[in-house]
Amino acid sequence: MTRARSQERRAEIVGAALEVIAERGYRGASLGAVAERVGLTQQGLLHYFPTKEELLVAVLEERDRWDTGGSRTAGARRLDLLGSLVEYNAMRPAIVRTFSALLGESVTEDHPARDFFTRRYTQVRGDMAALLRAELGGTLPGGLTPAQAAPLLVAVMDGLQYQWLLDPEAVDMPAVFRAFLALLGYGAPVDDGGGATRSSR
Amino acid sequence: MTRARSQERRAEIVGAALEVIAERGYRGASLGAVAERVGLTQQGLLHYFPTKEELLVAVLEERDRWDTGGSRTAGARRLDLLGSLVEYNAMRPAIVRTFSALLGESVTEDHPARDFFTRRYTQVRGDMAALLRAELGGTLPGGLTPAQAAPLLVAVMDGLQYQWLLDPEAVDMPAVFRAFLALLGYGAPVDDGGGATRSSR
Repeated sequence: MTRARSQERRAEIVGAALEVIAERGYRGASLGAVAERVGLTQQGLLHYFPTKEELLVAVLEERDRWDTGGSRTAGARRLDLLGSLVEYNAMRPAIVRTFSALLGESVTEDHPARDFFTRRYTQVRGDMAALLRAELGGTLPGGLTPAQAAPLLVAVMDGLQYQWLLDPEAVDMPAVFRAFLALLGYGAPVDDGGGATRSSR
Repeated sequence: MTRARSQERRAEIVGAALEVIAERGYRGASLGAVAERVGLTQQGLLHYFPTKEELLVAVLEERDRWDTGGSRTAGARRLDLLGSLVEYNAMRPAIVRTFSALLGESVTEDHPARDFFTRRYTQVRGDMAALLRAELGGTLPGGLTPAQAAPLLVAVMDGLQYQWLLDPEAVDMPAVFRAFLALLGYGAPVDDGGGATRSSR
């Protein structure tokens, strides 16, 4: 098998794992179910990922590619990019579901994704604090510092995903996220009318 | 067995289920593990809860008792009570872990807690919007309406719980929640200094 074909196969397997985790969570996911979805035997899958945890690592690396677009882009208006990222996420519930399920599971005992999320959140809070300071200065509305607002920004993104996944008709995730940016003093006040239930687009 | 003794037994079983779910999630929890923890056979446990889902219902009713203290109390300063609820939660990570794990799992396919969380969040967003309107009026900072701020309030509470469970040393959940209230224009600006990493108490 060529190297390119092998890489392609790995990507297919990771894609199938994302689906199976979205359906059953990581603990509920079996390598057999993932293998079946890509037309491999379980033995065949083990050739690419010798353990379930190694497959999880590949899934989590996928997350890194998924959500750093907004936070790592240099230059101005990065808060706008963050708003666009939330809009983009609202168009792909499957992957949002996978990572929301994994985040929830990660707080249970000895979960293999726990260290990943812990380290990742330390990093993201730092990145967000720097971003807020660069765009809005050292004192935010309510007297908050960027370091205080950073965990709130992260919490809003995660928390809104659960509400939106459970009830996409009731929660306009991008509009509510933009409302949070307005609360931070960024961008125009959001035109409302219908509360949180109407799209602002 | 007396009725009182039977009720007590049920409460013990629900307590054990809370622990097992915190450790393994609901899908990973077995009735056998719950039974063992209270010194019953699985057959003995089925006398109290004939199915795993019935036990889950009792666990979710426990959640209702757990977190409605702040939102349902009539009278003024209810946002203060909400801040106190978050402080109280920071003293009992076990139960916070149980419900954070359940919320995460609830977005996976055909999860038996999904309807519960969906209905609950509809209710809580409504309650929070009414609370915000009563305490802060119809226009909040950034031009937000109470209906826009309500899902943010809920998202902040849920999202902060994950960050805090993963890294309690790094995230001072009650202080960061109070910072969010300050952002809404409620209460004094939070004294900071150490960012989100220091306790305000």
